[in-house]
Amino acid sequence: MTIHIEQLTFETIIGLLDFERITPQRVIVNLEIDYHYEGENFINYAEVIALIQEDMHEKRYLLLETAIHDLIEKITTTYGQIESLLLKITKPNIIKNAHVSLSSGWSKK
Amino acid sequence: MTIHIEQLTFETIIGLLDFERITPQRVIVNLEIDYHYEGENFINYAEVIALIQEDMHEKRYLLLETAIHDLIEKITTTYGQIESLLLKITKPNIIKNAHVSLSSGWSKK
Amino acid sequence: MTIHIEQLTFETIIGLLDFERITPQRVIVNLEIDYHYEGENFINYAEVIALIQEDMHEKRYLLLETAIHDLIEKITTTYGQIESLLLKITKPNIIKNAHVSLSSGWSKK
Amino acid sequence: MTIHIEQLTFETIIGLLDFERITPQRVIVNLEIDYHYEGENFINYAEVIALIQEDMHEKRYLLLETAIHDLIEKITTTYGQIESLLLKITKPNIIKNAHVSLSSGWSKK
Repeated sequence: MTIHIEQLTFETIIGLLDFERITPQRVIVNLEIDYHYEGENFINYAEVIALIQEDMHEKRYLLLETAIHDLIEKITTTYGQIESLLLKITKPNIIKNAHVSLSSGWSKK
Repeated sequence: MTIHIEQLTFETIIGLLDFERITPQRVIVNLEIDYHYEGENFINYAEVIALIQEDMHEKRYLLLETAIHDLIEKITTTYGQIESLLLKITKPNIIKNAHVSLSSGWSKK
Repeated sequence: MTIHIEQLTFETIIGLLDFERITPQRVIVNLEIDYHYEGENFINYAEVIALIQEDMHEKRYLLLETAIHDLIEKITTTYGQIESLLLKITKPNIIKNAHVSLSSGWSKK
Repeated sequence: MTIHIEQLTFETIIGLLDFERITPQRVIVNLEIDYHYEGENFINYAEVIALIQEDMHEKRYLLLETAIHDLIEKITTTYGQIESLLLKITKPNIIKNAHVSLSSGWSKK
């Protein structure tokens, strides 16, 4: 079973540049989680979304690289039933004529 | 040959929450069906679409997980020529700033 | 090198139903062609697009299945340097609340 | 870690046709870069974007094929930590009823 959280959009402090430390900017998170669904172990997407937003608001990451790394660790330790996941974070407004994103995958084995 | 049913959009009762049992919500179904096409065995996409909508209206699923599981079983037993499929159901309106979906695949062998 | 022809949109006669034989309907063609590019053997995308539109206007296919099959044969015999391709044809307006498509791949080896 | 530069849109001289040599046309660049992120070796997406736009403005390529080839070489020699990449360039306005693109991949091994 795969959970898709797509186009999760909110504003947060992220980035190295001076204005990025002061003004929240829009980020778009896309997440795919594969897990073996059986019985009562389903993953609540609302909880995962809350976890992502709270972590990013609290950590105010300097680098998308660190945000991706830390979020993957937090999600996979919270939900032991996850087999693999793919996490992508987009800054849609940081470059005027492009969308820039970072993504990374994780796999149990 | 692959059949693609994309962005199949309708309203139905689905979900665990109180208001979800009372008020139909929008769902978006995406389905990819691979089958070996030869002669007269082509799959009628209109029939597949009717099967999905009728099943979901009738069952009023509590969990997307169960809807995915049951629909895959129903589609693959109805069309024995299917080799593999991928079914995704999206709730576009249940989370205000994200689209959440569940998907699962099936393969004959 | 891969050529992408995306969202090629035009109206043509296609389909089994009575009204489909009389009234042209919108189709959307997506095509990906892989070939080994070297020297002067590049494939002209404008020619490929003309080939697709002319074939479909002339043949007025009854089945998307046949259109896909015949077009793949025509394109791969016209351009011997093609290694693989993926062709998808969508009827965006035949079902009121979904996009339905058929696709098929081809590979030299 | 994967960097995604999506829908990078700008106008430049590109193409073989007479009017393409005179009038800049819109191009859309999509680029995915995989690299092993560790410590301080992260790739600055703003630099990559500048490299692409400057190269295309300077070279005024005749063929998308050559643009793709040269850009891949320039990006992979500038950033030695890249493991693989996928580069796609689209001409959205050259054909009136389709988007045409060319893409190519590169891998270290």
